[in-house]
Amino acid sequence: MDLRDATWTDVRDCETELAVVPVGSTEQHGPHAPLGTDVVAAEAVADAGVEHVDREVVRAPAIPVGIAEEHRQFPGTMWVSEDTFRDYVREAVESLAHHGFDRVVIVNGHGGNVDALREVGGRITRGGDAYAVPFTWFEAVGEHSAEMGHGGPLETALLRHCAPDLVREERIEDARDGHAEGWGDWLSYTNLAYDSAEFTENGVVGDPEDGDRQCGEELLELAGDALARLLEAVAERDVSRPERRE
Amino acid sequence: MDLRDATWTDVRDCETELAVVPVGSTEQHGPHAPLGTDVVAAEAVADAGVEHVDREVVRAPAIPVGIAEEHRQFPGTMWVSEDTFRDYVREAVESLAHHGFDRVVIVNGHGGNVDALREVGGRITRGGDAYAVPFTWFEAVGEHSAEMGHGGPLETALLRHCAPDLVREERIEDARDGHAEGWGDWLSYTNLAYDSAEFTENGVVGDPEDGDRQCGEELLELAGDALARLLEAVAERDVSRPERRE
Amino acid sequence: MDLRDATWTDVRDCETELAVVPVGSTEQHGPHAPLGTDVVAAEAVADAGVEHVDREVVRAPAIPVGIAEEHRQFPGTMWVSEDTFRDYVREAVESLAHHGFDRVVIVNGHGGNVDALREVGGRITRGGDAYAVPFTWFEAVGEHSAEMGHGGPLETALLRHCAPDLVREERIEDARDGHAEGWGDWLSYTNLAYDSAEFTENGVVGDPEDGDRQCGEELLELAGDALARLLEAVAERDVSRPERRE
Amino acid sequence: MDLRDATWTDVRDCETELAVVPVGSTEQHGPHAPLGTDVVAAEAVADAGVEHVDREVVRAPAIPVGIAEEHRQFPGTMWVSEDTFRDYVREAVESLAHHGFDRVVIVNGHGGNVDALREVGGRITRGGDAYAVPFTWFEAVGEHSAEMGHGGPLETALLRHCAPDLVREERIEDARDGHAEGWGDWLSYTNLAYDSAEFTENGVVGDPEDGDRQCGEELLELAGDALARLLEAVAERDVSRPERRE
Amino acid sequence: MDLRDATWTDVRDCETELAVVPVGSTEQHGPHAPLGTDVVAAEAVADAGVEHVDREVVRAPAIPVGIAEEHRQFPGTMWVSEDTFRDYVREAVESLAHHGFDRVVIVNGHGGNVDALREVGGRITRGGDAYAVPFTWFEAVGEHSAEMGHGGPLETALLRHCAPDLVREERIEDARDGHAEGWGDWLSYTNLAYDSAEFTENGVVGDPEDGDRQCGEELLELAGDALARLLEAVAERDVSRPERRE
Amino acid sequence: MDLRDATWTDVRDCETELAVVPVGSTEQHGPHAPLGTDVVAAEAVADAGVEHVDREVVRAPAIPVGIAEEHRQFPGTMWVSEDTFRDYVREAVESLAHHGFDRVVIVNGHGGNVDALREVGGRITRGGDAYAVPFTWFEAVGEHSAEMGHGGPLETALLRHCAPDLVREERIEDARDGHAEGWGDWLSYTNLAYDSAEFTENGVVGDPEDGDRQCGEELLELAGDALARLLEAVAERDVSRPERRE
Repeated sequence: MDLRDATWTDVRDCETELAVVPVGSTEQHGPHAPLGTDVVAAEAVADAGVEHVDREVVRAPAIPVGIAEEHRQFPGTMWVSEDTFRDYVREAVESLAHHGFDRVVIVNGHGGNVDALREVGGRITRGGDAYAVPFTWFEAVGEHSAEMGHGGPLETALLRHCAPDLVREERIEDARDGHAEGWGDWLSYTNLAYDSAEFTENGVVGDPEDGDRQCGEELLELAGDALARLLEAVAERDVSRPERRE
Repeated sequence: MDLRDATWTDVRDCETELAVVPVGSTEQHGPHAPLGTDVVAAEAVADAGVEHVDREVVRAPAIPVGIAEEHRQFPGTMWVSEDTFRDYVREAVESLAHHGFDRVVIVNGHGGNVDALREVGGRITRGGDAYAVPFTWFEAVGEHSAEMGHGGPLETALLRHCAPDLVREERIEDARDGHAEGWGDWLSYTNLAYDSAEFTENGVVGDPEDGDRQCGEELLELAGDALARLLEAVAERDVSRPERRE
Repeated sequence: MDLRDATWTDVRDCETELAVVPVGSTEQHGPHAPLGTDVVAAEAVADAGVEHVDREVVRAPAIPVGIAEEHRQFPGTMWVSEDTFRDYVREAVESLAHHGFDRVVIVNGHGGNVDALREVGGRITRGGDAYAVPFTWFEAVGEHSAEMGHGGPLETALLRHCAPDLVREERIEDARDGHAEGWGDWLSYTNLAYDSAEFTENGVVGDPEDGDRQCGEELLELAGDALARLLEAVAERDVSRPERRE
Repeated sequence: MDLRDATWTDVRDCETELAVVPVGSTEQHGPHAPLGTDVVAAEAVADAGVEHVDREVVRAPAIPVGIAEEHRQFPGTMWVSEDTFRDYVREAVESLAHHGFDRVVIVNGHGGNVDALREVGGRITRGGDAYAVPFTWFEAVGEHSAEMGHGGPLETALLRHCAPDLVREERIEDARDGHAEGWGDWLSYTNLAYDSAEFTENGVVGDPEDGDRQCGEELLELAGDALARLLEAVAERDVSRPERRE
Repeated sequence: MDLRDATWTDVRDCETELAVVPVGSTEQHGPHAPLGTDVVAAEAVADAGVEHVDREVVRAPAIPVGIAEEHRQFPGTMWVSEDTFRDYVREAVESLAHHGFDRVVIVNGHGGNVDALREVGGRITRGGDAYAVPFTWFEAVGEHSAEMGHGGPLETALLRHCAPDLVREERIEDARDGHAEGWGDWLSYTNLAYDSAEFTENGVVGDPEDGDRQCGEELLELAGDALARLLEAVAERDVSRPERRE
Repeated sequence: MDLRDATWTDVRDCETELAVVPVGSTEQHGPHAPLGTDVVAAEAVADAGVEHVDREVVRAPAIPVGIAEEHRQFPGTMWVSEDTFRDYVREAVESLAHHGFDRVVIVNGHGGNVDALREVGGRITRGGDAYAVPFTWFEAVGEHSAEMGHGGPLETALLRHCAPDLVREERIEDARDGHAEGWGDWLSYTNLAYDSAEFTENGVVGDPEDGDRQCGEELLELAGDALARLLEAVAERDVSRPERRE
């Protein structure tokens, strides 16, 4: 049940504890992919997961602005601070729990949100009013995950499948010209870079040509399946906190 | 230019200082109207305003969860605290200003956000990095404003025009049955109620039948025009702070 | 019972749940009226209300500094941030509730405090330890409310009645010379100004000559009566929060 | 110049950098002395200091609620948290500095505020916009300071001089009966008590009979003189921060 | 039982409610004494106290950075803000209380931490999950306390006993040359200085030559004894909060 | 130069911009390894790195309490909240930067601190007063990193080399009996567990017998070398923030 479209009486009549909250980011994704890429992806995967699972699931609207200061040198990138992002997501989830939707998967489309969402999930869960875990789609596509990048093969493929009009195919060549091979600037197992502009000319990491529409379809299938299995597990899990070790 | 769809190179090439940020709420709107009503309205009015003005305007994605704890007795209502909402909106606006979009109108669809957005606008403006004012669409429709309510004639009319599929016409009778005449529980010029459930049975204030599709079209026209005039004024205004009185 | 003058043993022996907390501001009120105008008003109205009601009411000391950054271009204006003001008032009220004075009317003398006090009242009330509502005197004087302004007819009249020595009658002509007709700088139903110096030369809004001493007496009577009725209602109201709608 | 009574034009014409901010508390002072004792004292001493010094000094309204949770077992005691108190005082002082009154003495009437005010003064001073120091009257009355107590000889004496009507002489016997000899419950140089009710039956520390009206007059004279000397020093002091030691 | 060295199974088997938390500072102590002086002292005294008392006591690791901005003109001085220090100490203590070590003495080695630790102890104790009091060693050495200073006789003596290699005896003459006689710059019972560099040339207060190794041994004995008595009292004390006075 | 042992005059004479800040945790490490394991490791690696690099490096004292609530079911585990930890580390690092030590490596011994330290490094670096990166030793030991666990082969090996007395060899069998194979409880690429007690009986992950003293020596060598290379890179890096992409 999509909360944007449902009425409160619909929600009242919906018997479930499960909810998904898509979380994205509005940030540069190279010259060929839209700023809204991570929102599109989070929504698409959330919907696919809900569709694949045989349970009622409440679906919240996508949170569109995340932790993306690392892309601030690229025009149009929006962001909020880590503290504010954590508070906004946590309180939004807690408001769902108030209505009994207290087993929540936060479906994430942006790498910069990962750490913060894990912290949020922990705080919600330890607080005791709800159980919440983050799920980041591109970590859940099997071996493909290794090719993630940024505006690279995976995201471009997913867009080609879900929102093809938003991919500027005529700029793919430009995108390839300035792309970086990997995320960050590493030395001694440490990323020395804090801003993506330190290691990519045009904001792209990975070759966007490598991910075609069919690949995008497969990615969505893989991520949707993984999410469906996760929802099933979250619904069944004993989420009480362990006893003190004596 | 819609930031969700644009690439960073598109944004780079866009010469303007003007931006609009739609802000809504995901909250009960009676048995006949969707929880996402305020988001739909904020987006529609923002788009209408941008269309009516003869200047380039950057359009941010809508912020979907606002200050709506007052509706928490109605299932599905989402909310964040006032503090978190203010921080989220302010920082999102400041990230736009970072790119030079530093004259911002926050287009609001929800009464519960009004005070907070005024505070946010003041803090941004006094901080000096940007000028921002909130614009609440239902305050900007001339004499219609008096009929506002909640899920009442104005919002239902606007939905009938912008998103007719989301209005449950078959439940209009139910909506009328439990509606309140006015917002709040007043005595001595003071609203004694803090929760809408203190004065409305089904979450509706005002008669939703009173607002037909044509009315909705007119409302959007009125609000869009008002917003366009505001954008024009914001673009031209001397926004420097006054000198100290000597 | 005035808490400033009472001993703790007096308070112990006082059987009531009702309290009033006057809240003002120390800020410019034109060349003719003192910076303390809003404190004087809040105290006078609080006392009038307590006098008019046939119940025991505890009266806290007036909080003298409020949200007045909008007047900072005028020398002598003091202010704190919105966050700090909310915390200070809320915690002060909660300390009263600790002693059983848990039905509280916050008697306000300053327009800039209105939104914040409503938020404070909501948070206190939803928190469950007390019920609190703000009452702003100049909203509670019937048709006079329309003439409010700033340092204008209403406030000057009230001062002429309550604290005539503080009105500089010899500067009334100056006050009229630089006064604005209305509060703010409006366009498209939006106030474009954040600082009063954007629309008033000398800090005055409305004509201070229009409010004589007799008018002040009437205003105090009206506001005191309204407050007394409010206190009565607050004492009797069922302040439990509504049930969840099922 | 008393800011409550002055107009902004008066303040504009006042040429000084010096300001005093009285800070009190509304808290139990035994069965014989009013809850407002610390406010009365802070105001009286501030006024005496301003009178004794041969410079123009701006005088802010007294802040009436301080850090007094330690007295919460005694009805009527009001308090705010340490954090909120620090913010409120600091921001109020900073608003004075905004107008050029950037050498400030915070005149304190309450022991519970001492540590917080020192911290506030440090933060203001290191921030660089103003210089502020707290002055606690009962630490500045020579050998009398040793007899301080609470609602004891010093405070009762001062009240007998400044506000005799507020001393319940008929309850002095009661006050003596339940008073403690010293503040706190000490062992190994450590105060084990956090609440005054842990060591005083009726809230009194020290014998209130010991301080007569003449003593009160002397105390006010001593404190006023000390404050005047302090104001002189604050006006003349080089308040720039020291250089880094090289 | 030293928590650094113990395993969780050791802690599980330890039956006590008592804990000590040493708190120091890393800050200048003159040209002759190490920046870690306050940590060394806090640890030594904590260990001595634990040794002298006939009860099991859990000993936390020392917190090494405190409130020391006042020494920031001297290279190498580290500090955190008062807010952060309070939070860090409070939460660390609360984590001990989570395991049942809910009677805690915070053993402090630094004057700048005193006020903050008292506030922390109050908040923990009133919160109800634990009882905590700060103990500052140099306030607990009888008449010696009067000679405290900074890097002066007491601290130098203690170091000569506990960590003689850390005292640069060859620079004692330098230390004496630039030392101040007293802490602060006082006028009218008010310390006008906020930074130690305002009153001491080389960071030293008091004559470091005055405290020899034997004196250090005595100081440790005195402080350790005092702490042991305090631990005994803390273990036995009724720490329930007093009843409301009726 | 170790700040605990150095005097401020030593620090003044030290010409470098480089600093290391060891950060650990006091938390369960199974029945055989001490709660202080992560502090021991962070200190040992920091010292090894400083030794291996041919530059002057300032070494701060180790921060002993970190983000370890996930181990709270095991007695003796200490922790602070993520917010407090971030503030404490950030402000401590900023105090070093105040003295010119503005290229900082935070040497971390605890997995639970990793995300927070990355955030802290980003905030410090973007703030512009310093450049800081975290370095987590067990991520920097080549292929060994894969065997990390908790109280498992790597940590036990390092302890056997650095602090052999702290390893309870007689309990290794117990440690093996209850250990988990991997960290967390994973499904669909998501860790469903928030507390280590959800997946390990005795707090151990990985087989502690697998890491002997020689392995520990090698680990320290590897980590020390990696840290030395990192320090070299940090000293030489252009840490200015990138230009806005035009």
